[in-house]
Amino acid sequence: MMQTPSFTPLAVVELVSDTKEEAIAWLLSRIRDPQQNGGAELLVEQLGPGVGSQEKENPNLFLVGASRQRLLSGAEDVGLFKEFSDGSMRAFTCANKNNFKDFQGDGDDFFSMAECQYIIKHELDTLRAKDETHVPGYTQVKLYPGKSIIRRLQSKGIMIQMFPIHEKEELKRLSFSWYKKVKLSFQPLDAIRHYYGEGQAFYFGFLEYFTIALLPMALIGVPYYLFDWEDYDKYVVFAVFNLIWCTVILELWKRCSASLAYRWGTLSRKKAFEEPRPGFHGILGFNPVTGREEPLYPNAKRQLRIYLVSLPFVLLCLYLSLYVMMIYFLMEGWALSVHDEEPTFWTGILLFIPSVIYAVVIEIMNLIYRYAAEFLTEWENHRLESSYQNHLVLKVLVFNFFNCFASLFYIAFVMQDMVLLRQSLATLLITSQVLNQFMEAFLPYWLQRRRNKKMIRKVQKRTTLEDKELPLAEQVRLEADMSTYLGTFDDYLEQFLLFGYVSLFSCVYPLAAVLVVLNNITEVYSDAFKMCRVFKRPFSDPAANIGVWQLAFEAMSVIAVVTNFALIGMSPQVRAYFPDSETQLILWTVAAEHGLLAIKFILAFLIPDVPKHIQIKLARLEFESLEALKKKVRQSAQRIICPVMCCKNRLHTRHS
Amino acid sequence: MMQTPSFTPLAVVELVSDTKEEAIAWLLSRIRDPQQNGGAELLVEQLGPGVGSQEKENPNLFLVGASRQRLLSGAEDVGLFKEFSDGSMRAFTCANKNNFKDFQGDGDDFFSMAECQYIIKHELDTLRAKDETHVPGYTQVKLYPGKSIIRRLQSKGIMIQMFPIHEKEELKRLSFSWYKKVKLSFQPLDAIRHYYGEGQAFYFGFLEYFTIALLPMALIGVPYYLFDWEDYDKYVVFAVFNLIWCTVILELWKRCSASLAYRWGTLSRKKAFEEPRPGFHGILGFNPVTGREEPLYPNAKRQLRIYLVSLPFVLLCLYLSLYVMMIYFLMEGWALSVHDEEPTFWTGILLFIPSVIYAVVIEIMNLIYRYAAEFLTEWENHRLESSYQNHLVLKVLVFNFFNCFASLFYIAFVMQDMVLLRQSLATLLITSQVLNQFMEAFLPYWLQRRRNKKMIRKVQKRTTLEDKELPLAEQVRLEADMSTYLGTFDDYLEQFLLFGYVSLFSCVYPLAAVLVVLNNITEVYSDAFKMCRVFKRPFSDPAANIGVWQLAFEAMSVIAVVTNFALIGMSPQVRAYFPDSETQLILWTVAAEHGLLAIKFILAFLIPDVPKHIQIKLARLEFESLEALKKKVRQSAQRIICPVMCCKNRLHTRHS
Repeated sequence: MMQTPSFTPLAVVELVSDTKEEAIAWLLSRIRDPQQNGGAELLVEQLGPGVGSQEKENPNLFLVGASRQRLLSGAEDVGLFKEFSDGSMRAFTCANKNNFKDFQGDGDDFFSMAECQYIIKHELDTLRAKDETHVPGYTQVKLYPGKSIIRRLQSKGIMIQMFPIHEKEELKRLSFSWYKKVKLSFQPLDAIRHYYGEGQAFYFGFLEYFTIALLPMALIGVPYYLFDWEDYDKYVVFAVFNLIWCTVILELWKRCSASLAYRWGTLSRKKAFEEPRPGFHGILGFNPVTGREEPLYPNAKRQLRIYLVSLPFVLLCLYLSLYVMMIYFLMEGWALSVHDEEPTFWTGILLFIPSVIYAVVIEIMNLIYRYAAEFLTEWENHRLESSYQNHLVLKVLVFNFFNCFASLFYIAFVMQDMVLLRQSLATLLITSQVLNQFMEAFLPYWLQRRRNKKMIRKVQKRTTLEDKELPLAEQVRLEADMSTYLGTFDDYLEQFLLFGYVSLFSCVYPLAAVLVVLNNITEVYSDAFKMCRVFKRPFSDPAANIGVWQLAFEAMSVIAVVTNFALIGMSPQVRAYFPDSETQLILWTVAAEHGLLAIKFILAFLIPDVPKHIQIKLARLEFESLEALKKKVRQSAQRIICPVMCCKNRLHTRHS
Repeated sequence: MMQTPSFTPLAVVELVSDTKEEAIAWLLSRIRDPQQNGGAELLVEQLGPGVGSQEKENPNLFLVGASRQRLLSGAEDVGLFKEFSDGSMRAFTCANKNNFKDFQGDGDDFFSMAECQYIIKHELDTLRAKDETHVPGYTQVKLYPGKSIIRRLQSKGIMIQMFPIHEKEELKRLSFSWYKKVKLSFQPLDAIRHYYGEGQAFYFGFLEYFTIALLPMALIGVPYYLFDWEDYDKYVVFAVFNLIWCTVILELWKRCSASLAYRWGTLSRKKAFEEPRPGFHGILGFNPVTGREEPLYPNAKRQLRIYLVSLPFVLLCLYLSLYVMMIYFLMEGWALSVHDEEPTFWTGILLFIPSVIYAVVIEIMNLIYRYAAEFLTEWENHRLESSYQNHLVLKVLVFNFFNCFASLFYIAFVMQDMVLLRQSLATLLITSQVLNQFMEAFLPYWLQRRRNKKMIRKVQKRTTLEDKELPLAEQVRLEADMSTYLGTFDDYLEQFLLFGYVSLFSCVYPLAAVLVVLNNITEVYSDAFKMCRVFKRPFSDPAANIGVWQLAFEAMSVIAVVTNFALIGMSPQVRAYFPDSETQLILWTVAAEHGLLAIKFILAFLIPDVPKHIQIKLARLEFESLEALKKKVRQSAQRIICPVMCCKNRLHTRHS
């Protein structure tokens, strides 16, 4: 066991500490085996013991790396897009590697570390069993030809985790330009993409875009708040502005997102065949697409689970949420009656207490429901990660939407109490923001800081190391202990709810946009900080857009149109135009709403999702590849004749 | 000049009779030239004079054919899909032609005649100018490298037309199984596709599907009509049925259409790069996609033409249509007053006269507007045929929708007169059906019949030919004189309007569905007849769906939801539930409408457009081609080494 490995370590594989020796030996040999023999052809070494090796620490940490040549062929396997010499993004192939920009010499530094780690992950994930019937040493862990070994080990609990390691220098540079200096500038999206991959970069890009898009609304909101504090009638103009705003920003984001995806080369990237999720189980059968043997799970059974268990559960949760809402209204009524009886400063504060408690309860319910939804969706046993994600997002969105906004809808349209709506909205928004910032960034940071300090103290105590730089072994062990970043799900969800607060009801509380802008500015910093310091580095995922969230935001914007028109129809200003007939008022409001919805859909249809100049570039690539294909077909037809000719010629030359 | 050509003629090219000799010679040589020299490598011969050659007839008719080998390579060029030996549809390649089903020997009869003609058309269309600066003999007809010769000749009026010729035997068989026998069975869609191509087959498939989908509605409609003739209140149930029906059938059609497209191999077919339309003109420049020199027309100028000329023109036409509608209502009122004064049988009939006149005027206006729309869209100078089609369809649809339905909307929602609505709907529907059938099938048939008879008489007079079978030259000349089939546009438009009548208002006139079913049954026969006997054979076009019409029908179904809910809200039955408050009634109706619209969109989103089993097949093909690509990359990498090795080995063997 060496202290420093002979290659650049890229990722770490952690097995449980009591893994049987033969299983470890078998796994390492499979990882090292050349590709012809069905191996991954990667470099792997056991991590040396830390300075605190006397204590019981897991010895089964393995560093994984790869030779330069292996990385090049791996990049071709995963279909990585790199910048070509003409500035366009193309799928990397070893055959014309020299035509890619920045490819120099042997291709050192051609790939970013995140790309290398992504390649390593792909190669490990697609390492398949050959003729082994089970994992050596574990007769109960069955294997069959074509089954992914790593996923099997993960789902059976033999492998604890697999994660890419941080680059200290790079991270320092990134965090400096990202959040260390307080500045008025955009985030270094390209650097984020370089270090964390496209999925992360898209989240931060969206966060930034959304915050900037909110600025005009916040700017309009401030004078509204300052000068019309008690004038609830002026909100019609604001509602109309809301309507147009939320339609336009989502359409523009699509174009913006396409530009980013083009720049990062993920726009025209084809999805590879999707492997089953690690946790997926079923009866052995043959996959109708690949013809490989793998577990199959009947769709009908999954549908039964969804409709007979998950759906009733979600409905039950919604009912529970409704029940809690009713309790809130009871408390609200009680506080109001206390305040009305004998109004003092303290009873004035008491008025806000029910809302605060309700907001806290909402957050707690959201959190509990989140775990329940994950458990249920896992239990539904989806074959693909994408299908799992869609079902999870749907479940969580419906509940969160209902949980957060039901009380506001009730106040607005049943009670029609605009003062209470404003007060309730403000309390909900502020409380949830404070709670979120605390739960999301501060708490994990504080925990991580304690762990870090302990480790550094330990290292300093046992060694003569004076500077705070940790040796590799300690560094890896420290990172292995860090919390795992669970993806952008919760971050997007938070933005989704904020978007809801702003687009649905902000016309009655124009300061909402200001609060959301302030929240998002701190969010950028806390999220950046948490990515760099609190969590394990995540594997990059090559995303081409924000996925299902685009749809979620668009659905919210449609609901916003309906809500805002209802608020407009209820405003005294508009009512004044129809003094005699409420029917006329409603009919006109409904007609206007239908008109705007129609315009919205037509706009969404007319505005191209991809900007013109990028469309042209994509079309050119497509055209060129088509032309190249035609040429290749002709050449290969000639090549069949050519070698024979060449042989004949040579023979002829020799013999003449 | 030979009477019978030495090859199977597939298509005919007709030039104007006074075309200069050098231009003809140049064109023929370019068509005959081998592909290496930039020619089309096709066979072409001048058509011999007809039996009536004494009369002045155009001598410049040319028969075009191709060798078997050329057809095979052409099929690869156009990316034709054929059935593979495993039953799947794959892009044909010469390299593995023997793995395709039905490929025997040299590949005779492997392609259908329609496919051969499509290949010929593609090869002629992509015959490009080399270094000619102009067409020989016509200095004003400029050419530049890469410009399509045929399109230039067409747009400059030197080439009159290019059309594929009929196969007498095949046509007889097809027409027999299609419309010659009155029977209760489905249309021979595969045979139609075989003879006319996918575009035609999709139209007839849709016509059939739509008619069958209307049957339940027609069946429910009959008892409604028979027993509730004067009971206008019962239509709520029918309106609800309407709503569900029109959502469901469109979703099912998408799946049905995907199945057809998969069977015919057009589902996964990639679109080739689209060439500019023949009539497109502009200043010479470089296409940013292909880099080829071609006319460019600034987008801004086109937008100006659309928004400053076309849009005002369409609005003017809509205003005119509104004006005509008002005249109709005046006439209607006058007829009613006459009838009320002194009601007799004749004044009873007089009541229907305004509607009949209005229906005829609507049809005439539609017809005139159609030509104006075509002229305007042509003038807008769209680069691509698809863009031209979209703008034309949009213009025509908006006007036709307004022209046909405005009076009905006015009667239903402003006058709220259900008796008049029923009467007006019935008159409009029946009159337009009668007119359409006459204009569409009978009139062209009668004209064609006269021409046919004249030609046969002429032939019989001048030759000793006894049987009615015409010689090739006469047959080609006869076909050249036939009307040109202008595509499925008008046929789809008619179905679209019928769909409108049925889905929007049929709840007040349940017999509408019955009338449409009857109309469509005769429509199948008259359309089939017209395709086989009245029109020139059209070139087949490989369509994968019904294109923009799917969208048009879906838009109509959304409008139908709104209309039907408004009708439900106005019905006495529903009003009886809210005796006190009209506001409550409207709010509940609007809420229910929003709910149904939401369900509609969710359904459209949830129901996969492509059936599961076809998705699996497509995924398998995709997976296999990916795997094959991987293998090919490896093989070609080995092949680079292999020939050298093989040469070395051989040399070694020889010398040892």
